[in-house]
Amino acid sequence: MRAIGHVRSPYQITASIPKGLGATHDAEGTLEILPEFEPGLQDIEGFSHLYVLWVFDRGKPGDAGLIAHPPSDDRPHGVFATRSPSRPNPLALSVVELLGRDGAGLRVRGVDMLDGSPILDIKPYLTSVPPEHVRRGWIAEAENRAQAEGEG
Amino acid sequence: MRAIGHVRSPYQITASIPKGLGATHDAEGTLEILPEFEPGLQDIEGFSHLYVLWVFDRGKPGDAGLIAHPPSDDRPHGVFATRSPSRPNPLALSVVELLGRDGAGLRVRGVDMLDGSPILDIKPYLTSVPPEHVRRGWIAEAENRAQAEGEG
Repeated sequence: MRAIGHVRSPYQITASIPKGLGATHDAEGTLEILPEFEPGLQDIEGFSHLYVLWVFDRGKPGDAGLIAHPPSDDRPHGVFATRSPSRPNPLALSVVELLGRDGAGLRVRGVDMLDGSPILDIKPYLTSVPPEHVRRGWIAEAENRAQAEGEG
Repeated sequence: MRAIGHVRSPYQITASIPKGLGATHDAEGTLEILPEFEPGLQDIEGFSHLYVLWVFDRGKPGDAGLIAHPPSDDRPHGVFATRSPSRPNPLALSVVELLGRDGAGLRVRGVDMLDGSPILDIKPYLTSVPPEHVRRGWIAEAENRAQAEGEG
């Protein structure tokens, strides 16, 4: 595996990235692709959204347990049922909106990455599961509990 | 990077996997997670859909050009604007529907992987971009051309 580029984002430290229930990702940034890979971007401008596969490269050593404690819940969950950065392979996946292209730079909205994160791949975002078919497991339960507590 | 498990799918060779315009992926299969990673599946049953990050492990050597010739179009496109398996890093991404769990096995629908493909990560599928906001670039253009030819 080798980086095809790096993320330019407003976030220098993990604590700056919005997290937890109701967090939204509207920040803008740039996917700076290395010049040698620029030919692979041909026709990417036609897509509104992209998948970005990137690397959690600032994990703490020894952080690779299989149970995660996400900021959106006070209960633990299996790491594969979360987006925790501490996972067996430090692979991250983001969906971003493509705002424009300047040569080997892709201006995007929706970055939730740290500045300088290595990018491994970019793919077009093609289809959505109809929202009414998506069940969100413990996340929906945590939202319901938080709402009930807010009303209690 | 290490495999956390392997895909069991009905497809033994690439030619069996539905491809091109209008291809649908309804095949069922199993994500067989290695026993040592089973604790990481806790609470995954609550999610209807999963992202599976896996490896294109049967690419031809020297296949790493940056221009792809997808089966859905007679025109070439940059590899990052396609889902071609021949890409700088052989990373694949699929969205599957979770049908059920048997221990370390996840029964899923929508497999487009070859039998035995190594799995690197599983993440919950949480949100969809509203379908009316998704632009699909050259794929929509190729569909329109194919339709016009069919009517011509």
